[in-house]
Amino acid sequence: MKLITLLTDFGLQDGYPGIMKGVIWGIAPDVQIADLTHSIPPQNILEGALALGRAAPYFPPGTIHLAVVDPGVGTRRLAIAAQIGDCFFVGPDNGLCTALLEQFAGGMQAVQLDRPRFWLPEVSSSFHGRDIFAPAAAHLANGVPLSELGSPLAEVVRLTIPQPQPLDRQDRPGWKGQVIHIDAFGNLATNFTRQYVPEGHILCLRIAGQEVCGLARTFGEGRPGDLVAILDSSGQVSLCEVNGSAARRLQVASGEPVELYWKD
Amino acid sequence: MKLITLLTDFGLQDGYPGIMKGVIWGIAPDVQIADLTHSIPPQNILEGALALGRAAPYFPPGTIHLAVVDPGVGTRRLAIAAQIGDCFFVGPDNGLCTALLEQFAGGMQAVQLDRPRFWLPEVSSSFHGRDIFAPAAAHLANGVPLSELGSPLAEVVRLTIPQPQPLDRQDRPGWKGQVIHIDAFGNLATNFTRQYVPEGHILCLRIAGQEVCGLARTFGEGRPGDLVAILDSSGQVSLCEVNGSAARRLQVASGEPVELYWKD
Amino acid sequence: MKLITLLTDFGLQDGYPGIMKGVIWGIAPDVQIADLTHSIPPQNILEGALALGRAAPYFPPGTIHLAVVDPGVGTRRLAIAAQIGDCFFVGPDNGLCTALLEQFAGGMQAVQLDRPRFWLPEVSSSFHGRDIFAPAAAHLANGVPLSELGSPLAEVVRLTIPQPQPLDRQDRPGWKGQVIHIDAFGNLATNFTRQYVPEGHILCLRIAGQEVCGLARTFGEGRPGDLVAILDSSGQVSLCEVNGSAARRLQVASGEPVELYWKD
Repeated sequence: MKLITLLTDFGLQDGYPGIMKGVIWGIAPDVQIADLTHSIPPQNILEGALALGRAAPYFPPGTIHLAVVDPGVGTRRLAIAAQIGDCFFVGPDNGLCTALLEQFAGGMQAVQLDRPRFWLPEVSSSFHGRDIFAPAAAHLANGVPLSELGSPLAEVVRLTIPQPQPLDRQDRPGWKGQVIHIDAFGNLATNFTRQYVPEGHILCLRIAGQEVCGLARTFGEGRPGDLVAILDSSGQVSLCEVNGSAARRLQVASGEPVELYWKD
Repeated sequence: MKLITLLTDFGLQDGYPGIMKGVIWGIAPDVQIADLTHSIPPQNILEGALALGRAAPYFPPGTIHLAVVDPGVGTRRLAIAAQIGDCFFVGPDNGLCTALLEQFAGGMQAVQLDRPRFWLPEVSSSFHGRDIFAPAAAHLANGVPLSELGSPLAEVVRLTIPQPQPLDRQDRPGWKGQVIHIDAFGNLATNFTRQYVPEGHILCLRIAGQEVCGLARTFGEGRPGDLVAILDSSGQVSLCEVNGSAARRLQVASGEPVELYWKD
Repeated sequence: MKLITLLTDFGLQDGYPGIMKGVIWGIAPDVQIADLTHSIPPQNILEGALALGRAAPYFPPGTIHLAVVDPGVGTRRLAIAAQIGDCFFVGPDNGLCTALLEQFAGGMQAVQLDRPRFWLPEVSSSFHGRDIFAPAAAHLANGVPLSELGSPLAEVVRLTIPQPQPLDRQDRPGWKGQVIHIDAFGNLATNFTRQYVPEGHILCLRIAGQEVCGLARTFGEGRPGDLVAILDSSGQVSLCEVNGSAARRLQVASGEPVELYWKD
């Protein structure tokens, strides 16, 4: 049983993701399709790449990730398919597979989707998700080899995912990072991964003028309304309000600077 | 493998579409189900009909479109199933299949769903999607012939889909039309289809006091913030803000008048 | 064909429900998955329990309901799986299966999910939906007996679902109840079930200073804008504005008191 995931910024109101399922099932009737999300903020390739990176490790080998956040649709940006580790990516060549590439360091094989026999007969200039990517993913699920789908491509576009920088202060060892994702609960995920968490010290975070010290093991250790830091389910340091929304409480957005430092 | 699509105005919060899947899979366990959208504006039959018309051509032959936008549920409006071209419609007889009928001109065969043995044992007066339409669609997917499901029906209700009218001005040849759909990106789809686009002239659109001239091939031809007109992926002239929302920028809603004319 | 339903408060933006599908299909590739809703108000266990109760009766025997509204994740609250009547529940032991238990009075068999061989290899402290519940539900779908998944548990946590109380007035026989669910249309479902509807009398409801008398058979019996009471598709007395939103009109929220009484 083959598995295709869908991730887009199309929203759910207009039926675009459903149309892509029609195209896929018309070509590959038995494939399972899992919606990851269709609520990536419009045109926000980085958010899309990060969401794909969070989800992909939990899918079985051979899964095909069809992702469309595509401000350059209809321009000269390429359409690609790639094997990345043990999974596949199908989508625009604009960096959307960056987090997949970082996770599966073991090599990548990519093609440019330049063979119209694997597309719908008519291709619009604004909905390649339907006309090029969905049919390509379905043919891949049907067993068409990657190398058949298009010409080899040596390199694909990669985004720069913001990395923490050393905190430039004499009195305080630590790092400058930022909020990189705010989930539906209002939890603030930072780009501090496990490796930034100091051993044998009490970690503190400073954000929007507030300081939070100590790493809770789980939400339940605080009282409702407490602001706590945890190592979240994606392995990132996250700021959370117990039974509430840290994003609303602190009035911050993605990109907000966060300092991480420690006390002896 | 049979395929059923779902389109409703139920929203996603209450679980109604999921309940319909339970009913369908209880009767036809192997069917694939594709959600088109459950975010049709409440009771807006025309929006539902248009959304179904946009999606249906991309589904394989034999697909069953189960659609429920049903302000008349429980009244004397009929429940119907119909073969329209190479697909099927199951839903209320209130015009929801109008755009399907326009696309598949090749004839329609309809029945009134008046045989309780194809319904759930108990029928509520407000959720026929669960009690009548879902079981009927599932039986159809299982191979029950359309003619078995109910008594023949010669005619079904059709909506009037607004058509452009000639622009009543001496100095300017063109058409008066309107916005008929605003998608999640804020793109304004008009009822000017390909056939209204003049050959050999520069097309101009006037909406909310703004004039946009020229038809871009794709979003990417403009700069972020530009207002451009394109022929969209459904074959309609659409007004779009590059990387933005034309609906928010122009503060317009569905139904807003649009003029299309040309310059020599 | 086995069927798993998903009900959570995760929302649809972050991809968490999709990740759970990846885990399930990695273990049980052929299972069908039906989303019930992912829009339960954050941490609102009672709303989740009621939504599950509304949906479960419409799923075929053997369906596995995987539900995660889990403010206590990572604390000492138990993770459980249970057979309740002819269906299964997998989720936190916090009362989320209360309405299932009320519906299927015929006995319950529960286990505590305390055997790591049925979990993902690594378990986070904040996403047991992915790490414990999804794999357990998938193993159950694969035919692992309930008793294999963990140690027997004699009792599970139950919520108190608010019940109507006698109306304490000499002049007026009736009941005091409340709004227990507001759906996407703004219909106000009360906790007055069929058994509270008087026979041979005209029922009246009082809410937010308004009185509505008579029970309409369906929305369509009123004119647009009318406030009507109906026996809704879940068997509850609901207050509805015809083609509108009673919740917006009356400016009420879940929990709002409602009086039901009758006139001779």
